[in-house]
Amino acid sequence: MPWRQLPVGVVGLGLIGGSIALDLRWRGLVVHGLVHREATAQRARERDLVDRVSTDPAVLQGCGLVVLALPLDRLLDPDPALLAALPPQAVVTDVGSVKQPVLERWQRLHPRFVPSHPMAGTAHAGVEAGLVDLFVGRPWVATPAAETEAAALASVQDLATLLGAHWLCCPAPAHDQAVALISHLPVLVSAALLQAADRSAAACGDGLSALVRSLASSGFADTTRVGGGNPQLGTLMARTNRTAVLQALRDYQHSLSGLEQLVQQGEWSGLQAELGRAQQIRPEFVPPDRSAG
Amino acid sequence: MPWRQLPVGVVGLGLIGGSIALDLRWRGLVVHGLVHREATAQRARERDLVDRVSTDPAVLQGCGLVVLALPLDRLLDPDPALLAALPPQAVVTDVGSVKQPVLERWQRLHPRFVPSHPMAGTAHAGVEAGLVDLFVGRPWVATPAAETEAAALASVQDLATLLGAHWLCCPAPAHDQAVALISHLPVLVSAALLQAADRSAAACGDGLSALVRSLASSGFADTTRVGGGNPQLGTLMARTNRTAVLQALRDYQHSLSGLEQLVQQGEWSGLQAELGRAQQIRPEFVPPDRSAG
Repeated sequence: MPWRQLPVGVVGLGLIGGSIALDLRWRGLVVHGLVHREATAQRARERDLVDRVSTDPAVLQGCGLVVLALPLDRLLDPDPALLAALPPQAVVTDVGSVKQPVLERWQRLHPRFVPSHPMAGTAHAGVEAGLVDLFVGRPWVATPAAETEAAALASVQDLATLLGAHWLCCPAPAHDQAVALISHLPVLVSAALLQAADRSAAACGDGLSALVRSLASSGFADTTRVGGGNPQLGTLMARTNRTAVLQALRDYQHSLSGLEQLVQQGEWSGLQAELGRAQQIRPEFVPPDRSAG
Repeated sequence: MPWRQLPVGVVGLGLIGGSIALDLRWRGLVVHGLVHREATAQRARERDLVDRVSTDPAVLQGCGLVVLALPLDRLLDPDPALLAALPPQAVVTDVGSVKQPVLERWQRLHPRFVPSHPMAGTAHAGVEAGLVDLFVGRPWVATPAAETEAAALASVQDLATLLGAHWLCCPAPAHDQAVALISHLPVLVSAALLQAADRSAAACGDGLSALVRSLASSGFADTTRVGGGNPQLGTLMARTNRTAVLQALRDYQHSLSGLEQLVQQGEWSGLQAELGRAQQIRPEFVPPDRSAG
């Protein structure tokens, strides 16, 4: 693939950008990093994440592929200096977790743009977070439009498979509906559980507030993990994927009300059937080898 | 403590009963097990869980402390043969995860009954599941009534602390409200998430059904773990703790509607503040060293 012969530009060296850079260098490719602050550039040099790093967009000159590994808000409102520095002949892709607004914005900004979303993560962020082999076995979803250039799409697929990811293509609206259900909805569902445990217990007095805190176990820990995550990130997801998130919330409330009604009416065999169905479908989403977390 | 000089009876040798038996034998106490089926007795002998095991309640004869490690439904509707065999002078305790109905039933059945709830668990059940040190550092909650005998309560506290558990006392209604919020509500919240992801995607066609299954990641896995658990157990919790579970569901729906409204109205700073609050309170429930699950 021609992009492999030229330096790869990585814009943003946080968890995703830093991991892509490390993986590419590990495979002998040349990586140029563009970062916002000089302190980040310094740490990227110390961690040896890239061959060259700068806060000057000119560092992208000569790159055959540029990965925009920026937070969604900065991706949707890109720095004009970045736009001016993107080589017109380079393939450009992103790593944003919502695709329809990114596609709408970027297909007008660069002729060879390919919207993509590598679905990997850890609890860490920033220039210290990048690590090798983050994408192995993980989905890397592209959401091309009719106008997306086939050769550019093939280059991004080559990048994803080179890094060991599982390549998928789907329309941007389908991607956004899917991540609303399996990624953004869980954040709100889980945060509401923390709020309810806190407020409901507080309404019963200090004794119960202390008791719920003492008794919370691994089940509560698991169910509230994503709800206790980065609030900026959770807000950005809801903001950029609002329509799909609202639909997912409505569908969720319908499901929960159904369970509530069974408890209310003492329909225990009906409740057991519903919980049995939940138990049955979970392995379709979470293969047993990943169910431990 | 006098109970330590006599055999301890353990009724039911599943995860909790089997673990209690192993821990006690490890500390040199004599344990007599009562089980429902001969096959279970045979496995308990092979695993060396107890000193003596039988399907005949007469095995409890001479015990100074009897632990009823039975499922809630069998605890609330106990076998008359078991009742007849319980030594009147023995301290009797249970391990049920809902306390008010157990207390109401058993304080009329045995003069030295102490309602208690060791809060430990694994994903496993049955006679193969018991393991040593399951209770170390975990809460063991007693919910005595005014009528509960002080010496009997002290014996159960001695048992709990002997096994390394963290001893707590609270009124039975407070316990049931607390576990509704941090243990039973999460099961329903989590099961509804599995249902919504399944049904909402199916309503959009087969493509989205397959996509949500491909893209579900560790966040979805964590948030749905308890919802994909044993449906009999989930139903039993809701049935025996119905009032508190319904109240918890109402409080939860109120919290979730609050978040939905912020998304609906595009109140992003408000949403971020709410998610920030969730992030802030989670460590009060889940100390950082347990947050990995």
